[in-house]
Amino acid sequence: MNPHYQNLIQRLEEISHLSGVMSTLGWDQEVMMPPGAADVRAKQIAALAGVIHERMTDPGLGDCLNELAVIGSADFAAAEQCNIREALRSYELEAKVPKRLVQELAELSSRGHGIWVAARQENKFADFAPVLQRFLHLRKEWAQYVLPDLDPYDANIDLFERGTTMSMIAPVFERLKAELIPLIQAIQNHADQPDTSFLQGRFALNKQEALARRISRDIGFDFEKGRMDVSVHPFCGGSHPTDVRITTRYSERNFIESLYAVIHETGHALYEQGRPYELGDLPVSESLTMGIHESQSLFWERMIAQSKPFCQHYFATIRAAFPENLQHVSADSFYRAINICKPDFIRVEADEVTYPLHVILRYEIERGLFDGSIPVDDLPLIWNELMRKYLGIDPPDDAHGVLQDSHWSSGAFGYFPSYTLGALYACQFYRTLLNEQPDTEQNVMKGNFVPVKNWLNEKIHRQGRLYTPQQLVERVTGEPLSSDYFIDYLKDKYRDIYQLA
Amino acid sequence: MNPHYQNLIQRLEEISHLSGVMSTLGWDQEVMMPPGAADVRAKQIAALAGVIHERMTDPGLGDCLNELAVIGSADFAAAEQCNIREALRSYELEAKVPKRLVQELAELSSRGHGIWVAARQENKFADFAPVLQRFLHLRKEWAQYVLPDLDPYDANIDLFERGTTMSMIAPVFERLKAELIPLIQAIQNHADQPDTSFLQGRFALNKQEALARRISRDIGFDFEKGRMDVSVHPFCGGSHPTDVRITTRYSERNFIESLYAVIHETGHALYEQGRPYELGDLPVSESLTMGIHESQSLFWERMIAQSKPFCQHYFATIRAAFPENLQHVSADSFYRAINICKPDFIRVEADEVTYPLHVILRYEIERGLFDGSIPVDDLPLIWNELMRKYLGIDPPDDAHGVLQDSHWSSGAFGYFPSYTLGALYACQFYRTLLNEQPDTEQNVMKGNFVPVKNWLNEKIHRQGRLYTPQQLVERVTGEPLSSDYFIDYLKDKYRDIYQLA
Repeated sequence: MNPHYQNLIQRLEEISHLSGVMSTLGWDQEVMMPPGAADVRAKQIAALAGVIHERMTDPGLGDCLNELAVIGSADFAAAEQCNIREALRSYELEAKVPKRLVQELAELSSRGHGIWVAARQENKFADFAPVLQRFLHLRKEWAQYVLPDLDPYDANIDLFERGTTMSMIAPVFERLKAELIPLIQAIQNHADQPDTSFLQGRFALNKQEALARRISRDIGFDFEKGRMDVSVHPFCGGSHPTDVRITTRYSERNFIESLYAVIHETGHALYEQGRPYELGDLPVSESLTMGIHESQSLFWERMIAQSKPFCQHYFATIRAAFPENLQHVSADSFYRAINICKPDFIRVEADEVTYPLHVILRYEIERGLFDGSIPVDDLPLIWNELMRKYLGIDPPDDAHGVLQDSHWSSGAFGYFPSYTLGALYACQFYRTLLNEQPDTEQNVMKGNFVPVKNWLNEKIHRQGRLYTPQQLVERVTGEPLSSDYFIDYLKDKYRDIYQLA
Repeated sequence: MNPHYQNLIQRLEEISHLSGVMSTLGWDQEVMMPPGAADVRAKQIAALAGVIHERMTDPGLGDCLNELAVIGSADFAAAEQCNIREALRSYELEAKVPKRLVQELAELSSRGHGIWVAARQENKFADFAPVLQRFLHLRKEWAQYVLPDLDPYDANIDLFERGTTMSMIAPVFERLKAELIPLIQAIQNHADQPDTSFLQGRFALNKQEALARRISRDIGFDFEKGRMDVSVHPFCGGSHPTDVRITTRYSERNFIESLYAVIHETGHALYEQGRPYELGDLPVSESLTMGIHESQSLFWERMIAQSKPFCQHYFATIRAAFPENLQHVSADSFYRAINICKPDFIRVEADEVTYPLHVILRYEIERGLFDGSIPVDDLPLIWNELMRKYLGIDPPDDAHGVLQDSHWSSGAFGYFPSYTLGALYACQFYRTLLNEQPDTEQNVMKGNFVPVKNWLNEKIHRQGRLYTPQQLVERVTGEPLSSDYFIDYLKDKYRDIYQLA
């Protein structure tokens, strides 16, 4: 092996293992840590983050990458080229930013979160506005340092969805608006809404947990290489494909929320557990982007678990867990109930039809903030105006409006589009799966998820970072990302559920 | 603040925080980690250990300590002097050992554990003997590097019980042998043994856990700054006084074992939670030695929880948890049953009377290994001979004899004496407490543990590392460590229980 490449591998694996430790700390903080340990945990995380940053910006790493650049890529296999390419990108992302800026971003991120929590609690956007203003300035500056050839907002998007720009997103989002706004209006105007009364009531927590574990295991979560616990917000964490940790929360009054959260997080987990770590704990075996990750969670949550065949397979099991609540309910009415479409204020609770409009609203606001057409102080006004325009509803206050998401409190601009790109990827992947394996719905109806999981493993998970998201979508589906599949899917499904013309 | 001292503090706090992360990883591995993650966890731990070792042996730390040595201690307060002294010691412990030896010790430790597990399973000491032989050689070499002025075995003892040597241990252990062997024989020969039949049976696990949590909380464990979980072997871990994590294991057939394990670990935990961390995450606020730590666990387990007043206070509660098992039992017969004295093969299951002889046997063997009077290959023979001589029993095989403990498989020689030193410290501390607070037994009988905990907090926990164990014992009790209190305690207690002459 080339000694410079060997040097690189050693450095990258050390960084990967230390980052794995950091992930374990993060999981522990949300799931296990005693409340009194918050202060010392912040110090422990800062110490470890300092070490990782030191390793990632080590001049020795820079020298090694320079040596490898001189050699050129022809001598290296595809996986090795990927490791070199990814290492160079992350070295530049870390090393090109002046320390002063790194520190101010970290400091504002930590301070900003507290200010956001308080502002949301008190419904006072004005308290949060200066943080947002400062972040906007810093993230533009950051973009100038790391990706000077891109528009600053595109640079921020690139951090989460590599290679995706406003010029690609804009036509997709315009099309979604044109199609979804009338579809939602038609659904809203329809007299016959699904009955969801049986989803209210009391659902024993131990039954909920047993059901969630069973379904997560059925669809492929490997509990030998993972765990499932409880946290305030569901997430998928863990330190390695052999150590994947999902969480959910249970409410006695709503079992659908926690069950579908588990299925969503299981989708993320299957991606993590399916990564090709036999190639080493290296960039090539890592997951690709936020959008591709979200495509995997949404694939299982929406394409599979919100489908009719899935409801047909599991309804008897679910009814057996909650016989008093569901004794007079059919699989079909259960399917209709869990797919109810209803505009509401909170993005994370939105259904699959209205969700993209929550994202588009945020994208348009971020774009306007970056190009200067929207002043920070006008955000509550513009937010509420767009909510009326896109979803026909009026947020009662900023906590249910512009202050609802945490992303901006840590300066994460450009993240939101990934949610909807994920939904589009998921739909396009599912369409391809149906073409390649026409018995998929039959399999799901029988509870046989192995072919679906194997297909995702092979086509997506095991590709690691070999390709860009754009390349991956083309390789898997034979064409670039298209909004057609998503729009057709929603129209077909909701015309059927709501019996629209 | 002196800039060199400031530099030192910064380095020490970073090391402390990274070590806290390491402790969290260790806890996670025993309590939470999915089994499939064992390989990657070993790599994560190795990466972090490498970073910590790098920090602890950083030449910049050495320079800083040299500068501080030039200044001399007069300019510094006691806590500052302690930080400098302790930092120097640990720097020398780490930096004086050649890298080759560090690596061979680490490698043998990891390999040795596996060999020991297999040898114990197959009852073949001969398979483990080469590991022991090599460790003996390496630990002597290690002693030559770090503490060349000490006898090599004393140097190994010093690692666990600073300032304690064979010349201090030998007379104490001789006295214990002289007193305890006849006491145990008298107990064994006595016709009237306590009835323990009611401690057999089935004890619901949820009741055991509720009881353990209640008693742990009653005696002072702060669940806001700690947790209690389940692991294969009980331990006290965690990363900081605000993040102390104890574990136990439950068996349906034996509730005493898990309950007293929880009390024991709570004793360790109270020491950790009581450390003076407002002085910084620095050596001065750390716990003192293994022996002093063990004195705190044994204080609560034996001095308090195995006492008559404690049994009188809790018996009604315990009987209410297990009414079917204990309905015809009295507090007094419960007290006698949990204090049964019976020679047996396994150290960790031994009662307080026979336990010291398990330790003395190991101490004498280690001493003989170091001075060359005992060849490694003779260990099984000598072990069994001493078991007959000290406890009158004959181990059926090496798994119940020389292979039972894990300590030697990681090269930890000189650790065992700390267990019995801890028992002696505990007894001497308790005697002082009774003198200073004559109503202690009344308080315990009423379930008021606050004065006991406060006394330990003030006298021991909050002293951190300001004093050596020898100084601490003198400061707290007014005299050096003595075996008198322990011997008197055992004689009085067991003459009463067994109604000996």
